[in-house]
Amino acid sequence: MEKVNFGKKFGLFKDYWSPKIVGDLNDSYVKIAKFKGEFVWHKHDLEDELFLVVKGNLLIKLRDRELSLESGEFVIIPKGVEHMPVALDEVHVVLIEPKTTVNTGDVGGERTVAAQWV
Amino acid sequence: MEKVNFGKKFGLFKDYWSPKIVGDLNDSYVKIAKFKGEFVWHKHDLEDELFLVVKGNLLIKLRDRELSLESGEFVIIPKGVEHMPVALDEVHVVLIEPKTTVNTGDVGGERTVAAQWV
Repeated sequence: MEKVNFGKKFGLFKDYWSPKIVGDLNDSYVKIAKFKGEFVWHKHDLEDELFLVVKGNLLIKLRDRELSLESGEFVIIPKGVEHMPVALDEVHVVLIEPKTTVNTGDVGGERTVAAQWV
Repeated sequence: MEKVNFGKKFGLFKDYWSPKIVGDLNDSYVKIAKFKGEFVWHKHDLEDELFLVVKGNLLIKLRDRELSLESGEFVIIPKGVEHMPVALDEVHVVLIEPKTTVNTGDVGGERTVAAQWV
């Protein structure tokens, strides 16, 4: 096994809303992603999803409120809870979620991407 | 659900080698811990374990080499791999591991502690 440096990994890609796999942990992947703009409302019926901000500011809209995350903060969105990530400016995010997790959850559509190792 | 700020959570305790739970994610916990000094050689027969450094420097001794982790770096120690964390100075670490994971793994002994929520 080798250590992973988040900063170096974020330097390897530029595309938004396309999570990259950086670690394999039990039944889950550690992923990183750059977000900018709005994503889509969705939920994951079977998977809890962790969002950890390492650079910038991330807004996670929920149906009844919003969460604002800064660097060094995380939230776990439980399975079944609708959410929409929004980034006014570019934000760097670490995701930890089961390997079965699809980025667009139950809604699918054109913004669905299969995560690749980086 | 509520967001978690790592800095605030690390301010709530002082003891070393006693992981605290800060998140519940599928079958795993997100834990934080302060390390200083040497731990014990051990392995986890069934669980991969993620170590992410958020402050300081962490040495993880393996039987055939050593890994040196700085802030913003992580490593996943696969199940069955013997390791011993060493911190020359205080280091703040995030751990992600299955809920079944015991801090001393297969060796047990006096440094075994049950993780509590903080």
